[in-house]
Amino acid sequence: MFIKKLHQQVICNHHEPIAHTPLGQLRGVKTEDAYIFRGIRYAHARRFHMPEAEEAWEGVRDAIIYGFVCPEITTPVPHDQFTVPHVFYPQHEDCQYLNVWTQSLDENAKRPVMVWLHGGGYATGSGIEHYAYDGEELSKAKNVVVVTLNHRLNVLGYLDLSAYGEEYALSGNVGMADIVEALKWVKQNIAAFGGDPDNVTIFGQSGGGGKVTTLLQMPAADGLYHRAVIQSGVMDPGPAARVREKNKRLTEMLLEELGLDASRVSELEDMPYAQLSVAADRANIRLNEETGERFMWAPVPDGIYYVGYPFETGFRKETLHIPVMMGTVFAEFTSNFDTPAGNGLKNAWTREEAMHHLKEKFGDATEKMAAAFEEAYPGRTPADALFADTFVRRATVRLAKQRAGEGGSATFVYLFDLESPFNDGTLAWHNAEIPYVFHNAQYLEPSYIPGVTEKLQEEMSGAWAAFAEKGDPNHPGHPLWHPVTGDACPTMIYAPESGERIDHDAAFLDAAPKGRVLPVFLQKKKEPSSSFGPQSK
Amino acid sequence: MFIKKLHQQVICNHHEPIAHTPLGQLRGVKTEDAYIFRGIRYAHARRFHMPEAEEAWEGVRDAIIYGFVCPEITTPVPHDQFTVPHVFYPQHEDCQYLNVWTQSLDENAKRPVMVWLHGGGYATGSGIEHYAYDGEELSKAKNVVVVTLNHRLNVLGYLDLSAYGEEYALSGNVGMADIVEALKWVKQNIAAFGGDPDNVTIFGQSGGGGKVTTLLQMPAADGLYHRAVIQSGVMDPGPAARVREKNKRLTEMLLEELGLDASRVSELEDMPYAQLSVAADRANIRLNEETGERFMWAPVPDGIYYVGYPFETGFRKETLHIPVMMGTVFAEFTSNFDTPAGNGLKNAWTREEAMHHLKEKFGDATEKMAAAFEEAYPGRTPADALFADTFVRRATVRLAKQRAGEGGSATFVYLFDLESPFNDGTLAWHNAEIPYVFHNAQYLEPSYIPGVTEKLQEEMSGAWAAFAEKGDPNHPGHPLWHPVTGDACPTMIYAPESGERIDHDAAFLDAAPKGRVLPVFLQKKKEPSSSFGPQSK
Repeated sequence: MFIKKLHQQVICNHHEPIAHTPLGQLRGVKTEDAYIFRGIRYAHARRFHMPEAEEAWEGVRDAIIYGFVCPEITTPVPHDQFTVPHVFYPQHEDCQYLNVWTQSLDENAKRPVMVWLHGGGYATGSGIEHYAYDGEELSKAKNVVVVTLNHRLNVLGYLDLSAYGEEYALSGNVGMADIVEALKWVKQNIAAFGGDPDNVTIFGQSGGGGKVTTLLQMPAADGLYHRAVIQSGVMDPGPAARVREKNKRLTEMLLEELGLDASRVSELEDMPYAQLSVAADRANIRLNEETGERFMWAPVPDGIYYVGYPFETGFRKETLHIPVMMGTVFAEFTSNFDTPAGNGLKNAWTREEAMHHLKEKFGDATEKMAAAFEEAYPGRTPADALFADTFVRRATVRLAKQRAGEGGSATFVYLFDLESPFNDGTLAWHNAEIPYVFHNAQYLEPSYIPGVTEKLQEEMSGAWAAFAEKGDPNHPGHPLWHPVTGDACPTMIYAPESGERIDHDAAFLDAAPKGRVLPVFLQKKKEPSSSFGPQSK
Repeated sequence: MFIKKLHQQVICNHHEPIAHTPLGQLRGVKTEDAYIFRGIRYAHARRFHMPEAEEAWEGVRDAIIYGFVCPEITTPVPHDQFTVPHVFYPQHEDCQYLNVWTQSLDENAKRPVMVWLHGGGYATGSGIEHYAYDGEELSKAKNVVVVTLNHRLNVLGYLDLSAYGEEYALSGNVGMADIVEALKWVKQNIAAFGGDPDNVTIFGQSGGGGKVTTLLQMPAADGLYHRAVIQSGVMDPGPAARVREKNKRLTEMLLEELGLDASRVSELEDMPYAQLSVAADRANIRLNEETGERFMWAPVPDGIYYVGYPFETGFRKETLHIPVMMGTVFAEFTSNFDTPAGNGLKNAWTREEAMHHLKEKFGDATEKMAAAFEEAYPGRTPADALFADTFVRRATVRLAKQRAGEGGSATFVYLFDLESPFNDGTLAWHNAEIPYVFHNAQYLEPSYIPGVTEKLQEEMSGAWAAFAEKGDPNHPGHPLWHPVTGDACPTMIYAPESGERIDHDAAFLDAAPKGRVLPVFLQKKKEPSSSFGPQSK
């Protein structure tokens, strides 16, 4: 593999480095900064069935290259490849692999373990999908064990076939079951990588934050993790009954697309993924037309294996003791980086121009919003109100307060508000905080700011690691940060000058239109993939 | 995108950096080390038809993310992902994109231009397929303009439909025609990136070396380049008549697979690539069974558009004035890195063990080979003879001498012979020299050796850049290197102590078995893709 630092010696010999796990020996690589083990198989699974743990082996297995990632229904060049550089990789449904970065192979080292759950909804992505997910720097900087993992996605991970036979009872949640199996692997094997199996943090962003929330609501995961971080991932999926109904309907449509009646459901297990995914995609489109809503692959809240989203069911009392961090970034899906080049110079707009754009978007609510925005963010251009996320932030504050009200242990809320130099000033986009959490921000082209980046990522990666270590993100050099109470929402604002503010944007969130404001890129008519490319704007 | 160096400021604003090409304005990014323009569209093409140059545009186009790469029939996790780290990327047949790294946007800078043609036979790969292809370091270190490009491959680039209509006359060579179109783009546009359109070097490795050779034999490319480098790419495709015959037969089988008769050939133009590629793969397997040979996608030597391989036709006199470099690496397809972990400690073998393994492989030829090897490489373990490439090296020496004999201008031959520390000592594998040519060797995990790597890549990238500048690789600090004559083959051996030797291995090449010795990984029974993965050895 390529390394990021120049002139670094790497060891990968026949007998070094070796991790001695209870299942068998694994050979990885040793850089100057970490031991790295890539592509460790943690489970196997029959399609639509629950995963089974990997069995023990003789001899030494190589863990020096990444494993397959789960197939995606489509893999375009993403519109955000510059701001969120993706790693693509060969896809195959035998995708139950994980990766480990650590400072020690001493089983008595007992370092905190941070298990990353990737985003991409429940449909796309992988444990190596972003360059920012590379755990080497975080492991080195904070002496933690970082784990990232792949699991089943989309039609492979979340197709609800429960109506077609007992053996498929959990098919709508096998993607989550893979994650549970990976957490079991961590529990049983991570000591061989210097990790503490009794101090495991699950953290994830976007869909990965959703997965963290889902795990909190899944009895099968109890005891496998001890802290939880939900980054830009609080989004209300709506009533469970409605989710179940849509999943059921999607499955019916998928079978229709393939011309299969209920007696032939088992044929789904053997057909090529390409065929299955085309049928799933068509069913998805039909369902959207029928319902007028957007179907998204997601765990099926059956009330037992997955209890349901806490907005509807409350948090399970079995997880109320788990310390939780949750937060958002300033502009999430509505960042100005999505506006066409040459037309997004928000920092050059006059106040009148900014107010004009605000009125176009928000109409009558504009004056109240602008006033509330200036109170929340003194001295900022009102243009920023145009791009400020309210959708995810509002849901996050709501969920945090709910949890505090239900007697949950410490719940910390943050807001990442760094303006990047890209495009003459770009507000924090969905995913923008990840490199700062992973101590990789010094590598990212669009967001590196001398001095600022170093300080901010020390604060953030330090807070995440302190939270992993002891359930509290406060650490020396970090501004004081209080947990949420039922009444108030203190928010740690990560910025060039970070600091805590209490309900600073309550009036702004109140003034902004409710409901989801569609990101600019989703408002655009979707172009056929043949014309989608880096220069087809 | 992620950058490799820490803490580097990158500029990508609305009005900076802009390249003013004759076709229109392009916005790229400016790092501390280079201007980078990614994903520049250079052509469009109807499937199986000749490419047409990109048209002019108004306003500013973004060139900040890479463009689609050509679809591959299959994309597994490659067995050599550790030693040759690949970049995977979304695939689409609209793939005519190129990338530029340069030190200047001054149209009067007139820096040498180095256009890289990627390997992967003519079936796989892309201009960004290896991390090592990143042009930033080479551009910076040697003040050259580096271009890499994508073009059509496999069934899209080389399916010979010439028997089915005049409009398909060149379908068996449209992949090469894309490259010609890219070179035309360079001729017309590269001054806007500080490049000299009258000093263009084409260089490529493996299949990319094949492409360089093919361009020398294509009248359509004359005048578009001025020096040529063939790295590990000299391999005899056999008689042109036989190649044409096999291509014709493959097309017939492909049509049979799809149930199409000659009157319905145009339907091939509209079917999904997935369908076309499955049929092509099946036809390929059938053809191999019928012929007992391995069909490889490659340009069709029609005698006009592509004259044919120089072993058969001689070099075209129109290109005899082009200075050429060609070379190989020590172990090419037979490097010991392919042996299973724990069983490849060649440097720990006794002389007796080494001779035992040699006898297993070479039988009666062993004694003579071992003696010749020790003469060629004094002091080395005879184990290395087991892994030494003779197949590509022999063809390279033969072609170089042929060219000198035909009156070709300076032809320089090299041999890359660096043993890497990976796996307790690994002989130079196919692709191993590429990071040294691109000045990226300090980033590669398996081959970095403190002190040695820095010196060797200065020599090599310096030689390539000097050759690009003036048609002669000699430069200050580089050992003296003479061109080949018809009689003798001086070889620059790139090693910790580089130096020229004349016909040093002639006796060894003579003693080794003729014909191709299959690489270890090709000798293995091919496993179905469902069981191919990083731990399925």
